[in-house]
Amino acid sequence: MVDSSWSARSLGRRRGVELDSAILDAALEQLSTVGWNGLTMEGVAAGARTGKAAVYRRWSSKADLVADVLRAGLPPLGEIPDHGSIRADLVVLCRGMRDAMISRAGTALRSVLHECDTVSADRFHELIRTGLTEPSHRLFLALVQRGIERGDVRPDATGAFVADVIPALMMYRSKVCGSEWGDPDIREMIDQVLMPLLRA
Amino acid sequence: MVDSSWSARSLGRRRGVELDSAILDAALEQLSTVGWNGLTMEGVAAGARTGKAAVYRRWSSKADLVADVLRAGLPPLGEIPDHGSIRADLVVLCRGMRDAMISRAGTALRSVLHECDTVSADRFHELIRTGLTEPSHRLFLALVQRGIERGDVRPDATGAFVADVIPALMMYRSKVCGSEWGDPDIREMIDQVLMPLLRA
Repeated sequence: MVDSSWSARSLGRRRGVELDSAILDAALEQLSTVGWNGLTMEGVAAGARTGKAAVYRRWSSKADLVADVLRAGLPPLGEIPDHGSIRADLVVLCRGMRDAMISRAGTALRSVLHECDTVSADRFHELIRTGLTEPSHRLFLALVQRGIERGDVRPDATGAFVADVIPALMMYRSKVCGSEWGDPDIREMIDQVLMPLLRA
Repeated sequence: MVDSSWSARSLGRRRGVELDSAILDAALEQLSTVGWNGLTMEGVAAGARTGKAAVYRRWSSKADLVADVLRAGLPPLGEIPDHGSIRADLVVLCRGMRDAMISRAGTALRSVLHECDTVSADRFHELIRTGLTEPSHRLFLALVQRGIERGDVRPDATGAFVADVIPALMMYRSKVCGSEWGDPDIREMIDQVLMPLLRA
């Protein structure tokens, strides 16, 4: 009678990692649908098909829970192989960032960023810095460094503001203009802004 | 006994433009403190020391009211005199944008932008486009055009994505990093990004 399939188990007997994971997943779902303001510990418990007490035993506050959701959900930025030119490398980078932005975790992150302006903001800024901004800076600067060695990027294009340009434009157009960042938009941004900014 | 000073008047007798203006001001105050989500017609009425019915007679919904608040409150972007170089002109432009961003109307606008992601978004996108994005694009492009004629800006730096760079970086750093955009930040952004991007 031992059956390890999900449906055959008593939900009440989920323990440890498995229940943690169900709660984190339910919280991510809430964040990406009702946002930071709409998320409740009750709603997360219901989504994970467990009790509120089980959620509070693990995370004493909504902010603690959301911090772990973002930590677990943010996609790690992989390496980008050399495509032979800075332009081709940047197209791949921007497509990856666009896909991350419209993913469930990306939507959740944006809701947190945009809604928690006050009390919890410092904490999330720190988390976003270590989980998102710094890794994406590192990846961008790796492409720039490769371009400098290849000879199609100027040697001093390594400032922090330069590395902000792509995420800033993506967030701005998505927020202010409702842009969906199709591939033609990405190519146009690279040709209008990134190539003149970076070229040797 | 005719006294036109504010304090001596019966509030109940305020009419027309004067009451409209008190309501718009109260709504701007609410937007910049409790944001789009927190704003209520009751709160606006209380702030304007009038009744809810007086607000509803003028604006049939919160979205109608907020649209007029933003239309009235967004600072008109003036002309920028020629300071002799694109760099000096850009410093003045960026300081003006920073000041607008942290003004009461700017804070209100950001709260609307960040909170109304769904139903009212299209309407506000349109308003932001005509009231903010297009005027700031025009002003930026006027500086670029002057720089092209002066000879310190490349002739093809006139694309829409180029004109997005400054507002995008300002919004991004303020949102993601909590940056307050002091004058040194502005100069650093201009030297790292705008000068390489625009130079002839």
